[in-house]
Amino acid sequence: MKTLFSTFILGALFSQAVQAQDNDATMLDKIYTQSFYHGEAYDNLHYLTKTIGHRIAGSQKAEDAVVWSKSLMEKLPFDKVYLQDVQLPYWDRGKPEEAYVVGAKKQALNILALGGSVGTGSKGITAEVIEVELLSDLKKYGDAVRGKIVFVNKTWDESLVETGAAYGLNSGQRSRGPAEVAKLGGVAYLFRSLSSSSQDDYPHTGGTRYVNGIDSIPALAISALSATRLSEALKANPKAKVFLRNNSAWKGMVNSHNVIAEWRGTEKPDEIITIGGHIDSWDVGEGAHDNGTGTMGTLDAIRTLMKLGYKPKHTIRLVFYMNEENGVNGSMKYGEVALAKNEKIIAAIESDAGGFAPRGFDIKASAEKVQWIQKQWKPLFEERFWVSRFLQGSPGVDSGIWGAHFPNTVMFNFRPDPHRYFDIHHTAKDVFEAVDRRELQSGVAAIASLLYLVDQQAEQLH
Amino acid sequence: MKTLFSTFILGALFSQAVQAQDNDATMLDKIYTQSFYHGEAYDNLHYLTKTIGHRIAGSQKAEDAVVWSKSLMEKLPFDKVYLQDVQLPYWDRGKPEEAYVVGAKKQALNILALGGSVGTGSKGITAEVIEVELLSDLKKYGDAVRGKIVFVNKTWDESLVETGAAYGLNSGQRSRGPAEVAKLGGVAYLFRSLSSSSQDDYPHTGGTRYVNGIDSIPALAISALSATRLSEALKANPKAKVFLRNNSAWKGMVNSHNVIAEWRGTEKPDEIITIGGHIDSWDVGEGAHDNGTGTMGTLDAIRTLMKLGYKPKHTIRLVFYMNEENGVNGSMKYGEVALAKNEKIIAAIESDAGGFAPRGFDIKASAEKVQWIQKQWKPLFEERFWVSRFLQGSPGVDSGIWGAHFPNTVMFNFRPDPHRYFDIHHTAKDVFEAVDRRELQSGVAAIASLLYLVDQQAEQLH
Repeated sequence: MKTLFSTFILGALFSQAVQAQDNDATMLDKIYTQSFYHGEAYDNLHYLTKTIGHRIAGSQKAEDAVVWSKSLMEKLPFDKVYLQDVQLPYWDRGKPEEAYVVGAKKQALNILALGGSVGTGSKGITAEVIEVELLSDLKKYGDAVRGKIVFVNKTWDESLVETGAAYGLNSGQRSRGPAEVAKLGGVAYLFRSLSSSSQDDYPHTGGTRYVNGIDSIPALAISALSATRLSEALKANPKAKVFLRNNSAWKGMVNSHNVIAEWRGTEKPDEIITIGGHIDSWDVGEGAHDNGTGTMGTLDAIRTLMKLGYKPKHTIRLVFYMNEENGVNGSMKYGEVALAKNEKIIAAIESDAGGFAPRGFDIKASAEKVQWIQKQWKPLFEERFWVSRFLQGSPGVDSGIWGAHFPNTVMFNFRPDPHRYFDIHHTAKDVFEAVDRRELQSGVAAIASLLYLVDQQAEQLH
Repeated sequence: MKTLFSTFILGALFSQAVQAQDNDATMLDKIYTQSFYHGEAYDNLHYLTKTIGHRIAGSQKAEDAVVWSKSLMEKLPFDKVYLQDVQLPYWDRGKPEEAYVVGAKKQALNILALGGSVGTGSKGITAEVIEVELLSDLKKYGDAVRGKIVFVNKTWDESLVETGAAYGLNSGQRSRGPAEVAKLGGVAYLFRSLSSSSQDDYPHTGGTRYVNGIDSIPALAISALSATRLSEALKANPKAKVFLRNNSAWKGMVNSHNVIAEWRGTEKPDEIITIGGHIDSWDVGEGAHDNGTGTMGTLDAIRTLMKLGYKPKHTIRLVFYMNEENGVNGSMKYGEVALAKNEKIIAAIESDAGGFAPRGFDIKASAEKVQWIQKQWKPLFEERFWVSRFLQGSPGVDSGIWGAHFPNTVMFNFRPDPHRYFDIHHTAKDVFEAVDRRELQSGVAAIASLLYLVDQQAEQLH
């Protein structure tokens, strides 16, 4: 009798589980259909990129993006839409940069100031160049660095499909370079762009940092092809001089905002799922893949669930962070406020890796939880929707920053296809035309599906 | 003693297996590095698309592609490079098509003749239009079809990530349409293009077929946007007439060729692995994704292994099939010859789904073999190279045709990302610029890796 009863109970539980899986599969079908047919991420991205354009934190365009984003959110049935004040330092590029190898015939070099770079002054800098692959190679030059331009010419590891890993291999030298070179008496820092193509003649900007107490020097990214040309010029004439001019500068602190919208949970309104990406961009291109797709995509993921009549169990909070690119002030502020309020943020989803075909999510969680997700959720995505990558990994930059205060929050980092991202990242090429509607809306559907599953089964993640 | 001995043997076998996995992983690393750094598929594709251009079977350009492909193969250490004669019917589009809704103000429609279509004659056809979603809807019109243009306006199922499946849902009506409409007395067949975007104003051509004994009628593809415009015009005025003009025609049989190269196996030279894709294209665009990437990609996959000093166990035979698009004559010929020689073709790999980021392979094999591949090979690709789709499925068109004679051959159909393929397929948009180098060479590496594994472990597949 006991055995029969147990069998009955087990059978009922099993049947419930199968029913839940069927319901989830049906919901995902609805989400994909809604997103492909009626998604608005692509149209919203068009407005953001073409009408507003690039929007570096602190600029008028960044504030335009804030105001417009808030109005977009207010059109949807959120329970609350508000701005969160963020103080941040505004950096301005100033006039276009100029660079060339000095000689009878000037050899032009394509450069872009790195974010935070000081200017050369209107007369520019003309100096000899020390080329190294690694900053650590500077040691052997000793005092010879003084008065020179240091040119770090480390090529990209093209063998990696995971271009994010290749980026990580080289990006440390972008951050550390200016301070290390200044310490040795160098007069400027020239850094080979973090581009996945050696045939790329666009310079790629990006953040760097200065260290208090060390003189700031101009820090500039040089395109991959220009780096190769410069290297050849230096082989032909090691005494060749390079002229550099930029007049970027820090302009002091300004007030800006995170844009936040809340969709109140019907069962556990005090438990929060944070989802979003950064609304600022670099001041070149249109900030399409970085990160127009991430903001317009996460907003559209929520809108997709709303249009399907979904009622979340937990509060879903959409956050457009300000200034991921040049100081992460928005994310720091979000974390401080959430910590001060002792909020219960049970999960986070971030999109900041482009709007290419969706491949999956990196997950910041224990190995056991990741295995559970692989077993329970991956089958819902894999064959039908071509989303199959659910691996333990790092959260996005913004989630990672505020997540320092919330070590138990399970975090999902959306991973679109990585092949093309670093061809256009932080360049004038990052424009609306580089985004494909089907790929973008497929990503919206993947994110909406994940958000649905997290909301439905959050208790299983903890 | 027995137990100890068994443990020892098992341990040795296990250690051998682990060693083999390590060797395979090392080989795949080398393949990817070689392909990304030194691959030539992209440069070869540039020549094929820009210097030769589109190349419909039977045309001079198709023969130019044959001669040039042979010369490419002859530069590599193949043991044998040769042409295989293929007789095929040559179809020529003639002058550009013209179409509009007749009225005070002509409303232009973007059309392309479907492959094999007869012409309207120089005066064109002007007739009323019957619009249906399905050919089977024609039944209810009875004799009213006589003298009319039949317009099949079935929209694309945008909810499917697997765009190939969406294509399959609608392509049958492209094939069957002309004969079914002619049988009912219709004077022309107008078919909504197989495009994955409803916002696409490019017509997509493609094959169709006529049935002996039924009068041929002109068969034309109309762009998605033009189809929508025409549908609206017919709603406004059901008696509206459409003018159509095309002067395409069959031009008789011509001699053409498959291009074949053999790399002789060192252990089992009589056992053959066939790999390749079709070298012909439609006569619009440049045949870049369809199928410049498939031919240049499979050639480069073999070249990659050659450059790494690999020696195949089995004979690897590269085949560039002629006329996949408009008659599959090349594949039929390949199969007839292989059958007549009683060849042992143990495996086939085909690439004919574009050069987008590689996702995996559809496999024509028993469920057990597919499971074995998922267990043994998928882990080599999945995390590191983002290739994870190894599912039971259909072979490519060419392998499928000749494979009818070789039911036991295990067949792999390369699957790149499907999101964008049917935006450009069979249109003027299928040009070199639509291909990304990293995505293409990533696919080359995936194909070379699979080829290596098939050659190394072919015995496990049978």
